[in-house]
Amino acid sequence: MDLKNFIRDVPNFPIEGIVFKDITTLLNNSDASQEVLDKLYNFAKNKGITKVVGVESRGFLYGAALALKLGVGFVPIRKPGKLPAETVSESYELEYGTDRIEIHKDALAPGDKVLLHDDLLATGGTIEAAAKLVEKLGASVEQISFLIELSFLNGREKIKNYDVVSLISYDSE
Amino acid sequence: MDLKNFIRDVPNFPIEGIVFKDITTLLNNSDASQEVLDKLYNFAKNKGITKVVGVESRGFLYGAALALKLGVGFVPIRKPGKLPAETVSESYELEYGTDRIEIHKDALAPGDKVLLHDDLLATGGTIEAAAKLVEKLGASVEQISFLIELSFLNGREKIKNYDVVSLISYDSE
Repeated sequence: MDLKNFIRDVPNFPIEGIVFKDITTLLNNSDASQEVLDKLYNFAKNKGITKVVGVESRGFLYGAALALKLGVGFVPIRKPGKLPAETVSESYELEYGTDRIEIHKDALAPGDKVLLHDDLLATGGTIEAAAKLVEKLGASVEQISFLIELSFLNGREKIKNYDVVSLISYDSE
Repeated sequence: MDLKNFIRDVPNFPIEGIVFKDITTLLNNSDASQEVLDKLYNFAKNKGITKVVGVESRGFLYGAALALKLGVGFVPIRKPGKLPAETVSESYELEYGTDRIEIHKDALAPGDKVLLHDDLLATGGTIEAAAKLVEKLGASVEQISFLIELSFLNGREKIKNYDVVSLISYDSE
């Protein structure tokens, strides 16, 4: 099954000139979604993972399902102000300005082996900050998995010290 | 297993005087999360469900996993401007002002039997709007499931014409 066939190109979203890779058409198809989950599971199953950490909000979709399949807990990373208990946070650069993400301070412990998951690897700023959050809590990042990688944006450069996998890769817009 | 033991009370979040029911402590525990998924699955398995629809963003967590377990597609309902393709939307009342949620117009078809899922039933405004979105697309709401129900807020009143189930109920703050 070519998973690319289930990704929809939406031109000019979120802004003029960008072709958005829409994963809702993949989620809508049960066979394709099952294949995504199985592939992510096979990448991760021998890594000794103790927690899956997913990035808000599309990283929750297969991330939480993957944690259940691996038989480990799931930890959300969210935008500022969304997590109710005590958090640690990390800033990252956007094209204009900065953004910030947070994790609950007690969500991971030293010794935890983390699978970090998000739907999309673009320029890599968010996932680099997410990896730092995991490490701030004393846990280690054993694998980073993405549904989609926009390889022409070279996001892997920012996370080159990690085991990075993606299911679908685009080498041009 | 008493799932309530895995929910954390966070006082004064998001505002002074509210005790927030934090599900991240439940997600963090793999046995408890597995029990959540199994219970949601058992509620839904004989309903002829063809799609699970989950409400952003905590409804994505068990919603997408439940769709995979049921062997059906998953459809996200999101805040305005987040879904890239053509949407239909529905407004609902907040304590002050209104809010709006959206669904992709082509995500469901007439004949689809929908399981609608969110993490929390409070006053019921969001889920009532979500049910209307499903019906606007010609699909039917076969079941609505929640992780947590704050029964003292009487949210069930707004969705009394549906089959509503919840795993954890609080009859007072």
